[in-house]
Amino acid sequence: MAGYRVRAAELGDCQEIMRMIQELADYEKLPDQVKITAQDLLRDGFGETAPLFRCLVAECEDEDRMAAGPQLAGYALTYFIYSTWEGRSLYLEDLYVTPQYRGKGIGSKLMSAVAESCLSLGCARLQLSVLDWNQTAISFYKSRGARDLSQEEGWHVFRFLPDDLRRMTSKSSVPN
Amino acid sequence: MAGYRVRAAELGDCQEIMRMIQELADYEKLPDQVKITAQDLLRDGFGETAPLFRCLVAECEDEDRMAAGPQLAGYALTYFIYSTWEGRSLYLEDLYVTPQYRGKGIGSKLMSAVAESCLSLGCARLQLSVLDWNQTAISFYKSRGARDLSQEEGWHVFRFLPDDLRRMTSKSSVPN
Repeated sequence: MAGYRVRAAELGDCQEIMRMIQELADYEKLPDQVKITAQDLLRDGFGETAPLFRCLVAECEDEDRMAAGPQLAGYALTYFIYSTWEGRSLYLEDLYVTPQYRGKGIGSKLMSAVAESCLSLGCARLQLSVLDWNQTAISFYKSRGARDLSQEEGWHVFRFLPDDLRRMTSKSSVPN
Repeated sequence: MAGYRVRAAELGDCQEIMRMIQELADYEKLPDQVKITAQDLLRDGFGETAPLFRCLVAECEDEDRMAAGPQLAGYALTYFIYSTWEGRSLYLEDLYVTPQYRGKGIGSKLMSAVAESCLSLGCARLQLSVLDWNQTAISFYKSRGARDLSQEEGWHVFRFLPDDLRRMTSKSSVPN
């Protein structure tokens, strides 16, 4: 049985990570929301400025098997957030395993690696968001101890888009 | 009538920001969750390593009036997040106006300044979380165009604590 290893993503993985980002958006039934490209990932995660995210990827250790299917089996993308209650924390933006590679414990391996880097980076919390109908993901996280803060404490996520921001900026020049 | 200015927070503001962080936690009925100190803010936002957050503060332009009450009137604390759909974004962790200074448009001024920095930093989105019973905050953000993504798309916030992370790490050394 082929083994799988988890390693830090490299420059050359961006195209494959982008393929999986789109697959995840399709799965989440929000396929049109993906606006970035592999070039953006390259610049933002592996460019000359401080990286805006960290990415782990899973790959098959059996090179023949890898040649037959997609090159990467999964990815986990995280970045620092800051809690004014507990300080430096980590956010898990995406954890995904590509369909051909499911049922092999790759999600668990990625999750453990994320937990490990969270602790080694001195983060107090690991936070993430899940769609309420995505019971597979909810069970996966809950079985590992995650608490649903939207349910328990009532936190709702809000978002402003650029048009909202521009309106607020032009308002700010009017005396109030 | 006294005016209020918004400026970038400085090292010397940490004690006052910490006072307002606690006030906000009290208001959110989660007073015991504040674990950090002004020292942590100092190190994480104004230390030798890359700052983990940005902070804007509001203060009264009338020095006599300031001397009578708390030194700072409000604050807005943000940091970069990364959307795998839209790229670099900003997260508004806290926006708060201290009780003595409410009803003077300071919240709007802070919000406009946040919107401005969001745009100038090239961020696609500004995101934040609000407690479902906090109608004052919800109206404030909605009237400026924010959408409730928990309601519209069903996003729930989940959190792992260090004990969960440690359990996952020890599991990962067992072959699976």
